[in-house]
Formats: sequence, C-alpha cells, structure tokens
Amino acid sequence: MTTENAVKAFRDVQRKLHAYYHAMGLISYDTMTTGPSDASEGRGVTLGILSEAAYELETCKETKDLVSFLLEHRDELDPQAKREAEKFNEGSEYVSSIPAGEYTEYEMLLNKSQEVWKNAKSANDFASFAPYLKKIVETNIRFAKYYRPDQDVMDTLLGRYEKGLTTKELDSFFGSLRARIVPLLKKIKEVPQIDDAFLHQYFPKDKQEEFSDYLMEVMRIDRSHCTIGETEHPFTTNFNKNDVRITTHYYMNDLTNSMYSVIHESGHATYELNSGDQYEYTCLAGGVSMGIHESQSRFFENYIGRSREFCSLIFPKVCELFPEQMKGKTAEDFYRGVNKSEPSLIRTQADELTYPLHIMVRYEIEKLLLTGKIDVDELPRVWAEKMDEYLGIEVPDDTRGVLQDSHWGGGMLGYFPTYALGSAYGAQFLDSMQKDIDVFGSVAKGDLSPVIGWLTDKIYKHGSMIDPKPLFEAAVGKPFDPSYFTEYLEKKYGELYGV
Amino acid sequence: MTTENAVKAFRDVQRKLHAYYHAMGLISYDTMTTGPSDASEGRGVTLGILSEAAYELETCKETKDLVSFLLEHRDELDPQAKREAEKFNEGSEYVSSIPAGEYTEYEMLLNKSQEVWKNAKSANDFASFAPYLKKIVETNIRFAKYYRPDQDVMDTLLGRYEKGLTTKELDSFFGSLRARIVPLLKKIKEVPQIDDAFLHQYFPKDKQEEFSDYLMEVMRIDRSHCTIGETEHPFTTNFNKNDVRITTHYYMNDLTNSMYSVIHESGHATYELNSGDQYEYTCLAGGVSMGIHESQSRFFENYIGRSREFCSLIFPKVCELFPEQMKGKTAEDFYRGVNKSEPSLIRTQADELTYPLHIMVRYEIEKLLLTGKIDVDELPRVWAEKMDEYLGIEVPDDTRGVLQDSHWGGGMLGYFPTYALGSAYGAQFLDSMQKDIDVFGSVAKGDLSPVIGWLTDKIYKHGSMIDPKPLFEAAVGKPFDPSYFTEYLEKKYGELYGV
Repeated sequence: MTTENAVKAFRDVQRKLHAYYHAMGLISYDTMTTGPSDASEGRGVTLGILSEAAYELETCKETKDLVSFLLEHRDELDPQAKREAEKFNEGSEYVSSIPAGEYTEYEMLLNKSQEVWKNAKSANDFASFAPYLKKIVETNIRFAKYYRPDQDVMDTLLGRYEKGLTTKELDSFFGSLRARIVPLLKKIKEVPQIDDAFLHQYFPKDKQEEFSDYLMEVMRIDRSHCTIGETEHPFTTNFNKNDVRITTHYYMNDLTNSMYSVIHESGHATYELNSGDQYEYTCLAGGVSMGIHESQSRFFENYIGRSREFCSLIFPKVCELFPEQMKGKTAEDFYRGVNKSEPSLIRTQADELTYPLHIMVRYEIEKLLLTGKIDVDELPRVWAEKMDEYLGIEVPDDTRGVLQDSHWGGGMLGYFPTYALGSAYGAQFLDSMQKDIDVFGSVAKGDLSPVIGWLTDKIYKHGSMIDPKPLFEAAVGKPFDPSYFTEYLEKKYGELYGV
Repeated sequence: MTTENAVKAFRDVQRKLHAYYHAMGLISYDTMTTGPSDASEGRGVTLGILSEAAYELETCKETKDLVSFLLEHRDELDPQAKREAEKFNEGSEYVSSIPAGEYTEYEMLLNKSQEVWKNAKSANDFASFAPYLKKIVETNIRFAKYYRPDQDVMDTLLGRYEKGLTTKELDSFFGSLRARIVPLLKKIKEVPQIDDAFLHQYFPKDKQEEFSDYLMEVMRIDRSHCTIGETEHPFTTNFNKNDVRITTHYYMNDLTNSMYSVIHESGHATYELNSGDQYEYTCLAGGVSMGIHESQSRFFENYIGRSREFCSLIFPKVCELFPEQMKGKTAEDFYRGVNKSEPSLIRTQADELTYPLHIMVRYEIEKLLLTGKIDVDELPRVWAEKMDEYLGIEVPDDTRGVLQDSHWGGGMLGYFPTYALGSAYGAQFLDSMQKDIDVFGSVAKGDLSPVIGWLTDKIYKHGSMIDPKPLFEAAVGKPFDPSYFTEYLEKKYGELYGV
C-alpha cells in the first residue's frame, strides 16, 4: 500500500463516518425542532443501527490498520493528512482503552440515568438520582485510570473536552475570579440597581422573529447555509460547513432572552460557517474544542453584543419593532438594561458577571467528588453553601440547585469549566484584536466584517487542524491569562454601577 | 441454518435497510421543509454514501442467499415471513434483470434530465428536453424487455407502480370516462357557472394554520405521531407508522387550496398511521401501492371532504375563522363553491371532475410513445390536440402543457394512471362502505371514526401484506368497475349544475 492510497482509503472512511453522523445529527435536530413528539421508538431503532455501523467502521481492524500504517509513515504525509491520522487515533484511543463490556454497561447506565435525572428534577427528588450519579462518578474515575493511568483523574477528564487543560490552570483562573469578582458583586449589591422593567413587557412573537432575522443579518450569517428554529433550549448544530442550524426560544415577556440566544448561537454558527473548506468530511472539519467554541459564542454575545456600541447600533431597530415598549427610553437605557447584573439560581439565565461563578461552583464540586473529599449524598448541602458564599443567594430546592443541569446525569464531568474558560478567552481575543483593528468603531458602523475576518484568520479557517492551546496562543501571542477577563469585568461593571 | 434463524437474519437486514431509508427520507424531508437552501453538496455526499450502503446490503450475496433459502423453504414459513421474502425478492428482481452498467448509466441520465426538465419548463423550451425524454423512453422499453421479455411493455411499466394493473383494464376505464365525462363537461360549460369568488379573497396565514389544525382534528390525526409542515408542493412522507409528516402550501388569496391539500395528505397519513404494527421495519410496512394510497387521499379529499355533509360540518368553523370573508354566505354556498368545475391547464389544480381527464391525456400519450406510434418531438402537438378534445381548452405554451409535470423527466412512465385509478377506487369503496355504515350520517355528526374504522379493517391494517388487486376486491367484494366512478360524477355534477 502506498501512503497516497492509504490516505485516500482513510478519507473514504472519514467521509462514511461523517455521513452516519450527519444522519444521526439530523434525526436529533428534527426530534428537538419539528418532529412528532411521540416517535422515539422508531428513531431509537434507526439511531441504534446507524451508531452501530459508525462504531464498527471506526473500530474495525481495517480502519485500525489503516491508521497505524499512516502513523508509521507520518513523516511522509502532508501536514493535514498527518493531523487527520493523529486526531482520529486520539479519538479512538480512549474508547479502546476501556474493556468493551464496561463501555456498553456505562452507555446503558447513562441512558437510564438521564431519564432518572429528568424525573428527579421535576419531582425535586435528589435522593432518587444520587445512586446513579455515584455510579457515574465511580465509572469516570475508573475509565480515566484505564486511559491515562499515571495522570490526575480531573486532568484526564478536563482534557477530554479541552485538550491540554489542567486543574492547575483552572485553579489559578477560578482563584482570580474568587478574589476579584466575588467582592465586586458584593459592592454592586449595595448600590442602586439598574431598571430593566421595560425589557420585561409583552413582546409579540412575530416581531421577535423579525428581530432574530435582523440580528442574524447584523451578524453576517449567510442564511442560505444557516437556518433558525425554535426549541426548548437554544443550541447550534452543523452537519457540514454549509449546513448549520441555530435555534432559539421566544419568551413573550422578555425581549433580551431570545435576543442574546440568537447572538450567542450565531457566534457558534459563524465559527462553523467559516471553517476551512479543505477539512470538510474529515475529522478536522469545524470547531476544535468546546472552550474555543464557547469563546466565540460568548465573544459575540457579551463583548460585542452587550457593548455600548452594539446597543446603540441596534436600538433604532428595537424601537421600530417595539415602539410602545421603548417609549421614552434611550440607547443608553437599553445598554444598561441588558447589562443588569443580579445573582440568580439558574446558570443558563445568569448575566455576564455572575455566570462564571455558577461554573466555579460546579468545578469545585467536581474536584471534591473526583478526589473523594465529598460523597454524592452531600451535594445538596455543598451546593447551597457555595451558592451562598459566591453569589449570596439561598437555594430553595434541588430542582433549582444541584439538579438543574443535565450534564452530570449524561456523564459529562469536567465539561462545565469550558463554559467559563470560553468567556475568559474572549477578553484576551478582544485585547489582541483591538491592536489590529478598530473593533468598536466597526461595530458602531454596523460592519462586523473586520471582526469576523480577524477571527476567521486566527481561528475559524484552521478548523481542528491546531490544538486549542497553541491555536489560542498563536492568536493572542501569549499564554492564557485570566487577568484580562477580571479586568474587563471590573472596568465594565465598575463603570455601570459606579463602584 | 434453520428457517427460524434465517427469518431472524432476514428481518435484521430489513431493519437495517429501513434505517438507511429513514435517514435518507429525513434528509429529503428536511431539504424540502426547513433545511438551508444552499446545502445540496453536503446532502449529496451523505445521500450517496447511505444509498450505496443500502444498495450493497440489498443486493449482496449474503442477502440474496438468505432470500433464496427462505423462498426454497417457503412452505415452512408463517404467512408474514413468506410474504416478506416474496415481496423483497420482487423488489430486487427488477434491478437484477438489468445489466449493472446500464442501470448506473440510466441513473445518471435521470439525474441530468431532471435538471434539464426544470430549466426547459421555466424557459418554455421543449426542444432542449426532447433528446433526454427520447432516451428515457427508449431505456424504459429496453428495461421492460429485460425484466419481462414476453409481456407488453406498457403492462410491465404499469405493474411496477400498481401490481396487476393492465392496459386492458385502463383502456376500459378511460374509455368509459371518455364516453361519459367528456359529454358531461360540455353540458356544464353551457349552463350558468358557480360563483366561488368569495373563496378567493385574502385569507391570513395564521388563520389558515389554525384551520389546518382543525381539519386534522376532524380527520382524527394523532398529532403526536404526525406533524404538518410547509413546502412548495404538498406531500406526505413517513419514516414508520408513528412518524408521519404531511405538508401544505398556503395561498393567501385562496382558502380551499391548502384546505384540500391538508385533507388529501391527511388521507395518506391516516393509511400509514393505521398500518399493522406487526409489519413495522419490514418491507410490508405501510401502504401497498400508489393506486391504493391515492385512493385514500382522494377518498377523504373528494368523497368525504367535498360532500355536502362535510361542508356543513366545517362551515361554522370557517365562519369563526373568517367572519368577514364568509359574510352573507351559507353552508350550501360553500359546498357549491368548493365543487366548482372548470377546465384548466394544470393537472395539480384541477377539480374532481376534470382531474381524471388530465390523467387520460397522459396515459394515452404514454401508450403512443411506448408503442412507437408517435415520436417525442410530436408531443407538444399531440398534447394540445388531446387537451382540446377532452377538456375543450387551448394550450398556450409547453410550460403549462407537456412540460408541467416532473414525472417523465424522472423516468416515471406508467405512473400517472394510478392517480385516476385512486379516484375511481374511492367510488367503489364508498358504495361498499355505505352498505355497512352510515357514512354521511357520521360525517354530519363530525365523527369520522366509523369511516376510518372501516378503512382500517379493510385496507390499512394489512400494510403491504396483500397485493393491491386482491386487497381491493376483498374490500368491495367484486372486481374494479369504473361505472361506480362515472355514475358518482354524473349524479353529483348533474345535481350541482342541473344538467
């Protein structure tokens, strides 16, 4: 076999896998958007067959031999083919490290525990979920040891979602948040609050839909490659770089909820839509990691979308669509309103300032669990203590406490930090970007193309060709430094609240 | 191998094929409903891979051996397993009869000709399409000879869409239409016409959507298993019996267009939703043929939906939703309005009376083409002559003439008759049904369950277990007889127009 033939055969395998994942992804998307509510059995049959076909193709001897051959000849490959083989191998290495029976057993556990979590959440019944979470924690520890016997368990789990991320780095990151954001929040609590009542009137759905179209236009989303749908929880999914879907949820008594969902998800979409063509249908297509992806959605949501310039830019449109609701209000009122900070119970509804503290609570608890310092049964108590300590808020029940997120029941331990990290990456991107282009001058003019151009050049076009850490460092010219983020928050919220 | 094991293995193959077709079907559905407009490349990649996988599985040696084994042991099988093997074999027999190279070449020809047809239609340029249609006709004749060397070509093509259907039967059917409907239409032309202007006012989309929901409720569609979407051309698709999708198209200046699309497609949906559970994920799942399927959609659209009783039933709702537009109108005006008959150019917009004549034009032309009595180049002339003879209408251009339908460019010769046949079957179903239940008494009360129950018992629950002809004959207790249809039309339109 020549390396050329091997690369060709390997790309065929990747293309086939892509096809299976496209089909499975569309079935999931359809389920959450327009599909019939009671059709899970038939979907399950098809998903089972397609995922089995994908698993077989990914792990069969032929594929393994092909990848081994390519890795043995890696010096003869061009950089992309080399990276494809390495990245593909990384992906299957984890699964291969786990005894097959245990892997299937765990999949079945997760399937069950997600259902149990859902019921536990609606019944505010943590005790029914605890035994499942215990098993999930134990299994995660065991699997991490199979995969990387000599490495810290938490580091192994973190690395699965954000390659190269360590507890050391996160401890320093959350340490600086604790030292600087917690006191800032306390100061804000003592001064007069921002009035955002005008953003909580009745906003008809058809007008909000028009507003979404307008925002996507401002975000320069190519609508022939990206649609918007409605779901319970907003998300972005893509099947290839020319087929991206974002969703939102309209609340009739809240203008900004869907507005910032649309901007956030459009940030994710922009990343995918501008990924390099040469990576299509390979394992290098699209965004490289959760952290970098979240940095893009939050960059547009917060650094751009909650800036004074952006608020001024779109305020005339807001007034055009909602003249009654905006009567007597200025662009500055709008800017202040959308930036109101207030400790709250639910992570997904938190504002820019308090959001990372919600993540900190989860990160600290994950560490305690994985090192055996606390037991799953203690979670409600520890949760309440930390919410009180960092956010100064009392947790009335587990539904709005430890049971609010689906992640742990789905086996995702070590995933939450990527959310906060994404926010923090953004501050450093902004700093670097401002050295090259007039970011807010462009925003004020309504032209986001220099911003998107900068990000495309530094991040998007590379797809998954470069690991998150070197990608980030090449973009900003230095390692990750959380002080950019804390300084940004202090400056912005200091000015907003005069503290 | 025991027959029991063989049946199990065979059902696994069918389940896998089902999964591939589910995935491909959803990709097509998504393309036509909510998917991005410019994403055909990526869809093409995935569809290509999935259809290749399906083709391989369907035609591989293992599958063929399995089916042969089952057919050899057919006497040991239960009726369902026996029928599955036979039906599956029938499906692959046609493909297998054609030399592989020719089959692929034809697929490529069709792919190209569909595009050529689309452009030819918008440019009113039949000449550019003619060479493709010539090749399609030649290939269809050749393939029919490969498949059934001793059979009449037209009969072979008809049988592919409606097993057992022959030209002899259709000649007699269309002969009686020609003899009885053409003179009736001429008489109608000479008397005062029905006023349906009130149905062509402005009807806002949101109210039409509410109306669709109401109609699906009247049709007893279980919405947890069936959704409604919007497309350019209405259609029904299903992935299994609990996952059915209908679509409609709303015209703001026409109330009845979408209304009858919803009823028609709900008829197709009802068939699928009530198919026997035991056939799920096998080749016996769902409707047995095009003709029987169309008989169900048209039964609800015309025999039920355009009846006086149905119009009276829904008229209060129409008035509630559109009080201004219905001012001064009665249920009888509504009944007369929705039944207005008027010769027109476009098949898909034709009324109940003129519709079968549009099909007759196509059927006669197909016969002339396949027996070499006319050449493709003569089609525009022959089309115009027949439209004038049967419908008394002048064809101004080929766009609204011979180029209007996509079928021939897609290789579907012998398909059109199933449309008219479906309409005609309905008259005989109605006659039989009325002997068992009080059809229009139930409709008047707004309770369609006796009607659906009768059809479920006679047709739906059998899935594809019984061939269309014996299924039909068992349901109505005698062979197909077109006079039921012509008598129904003569009676209804005679009374409506006083002729």
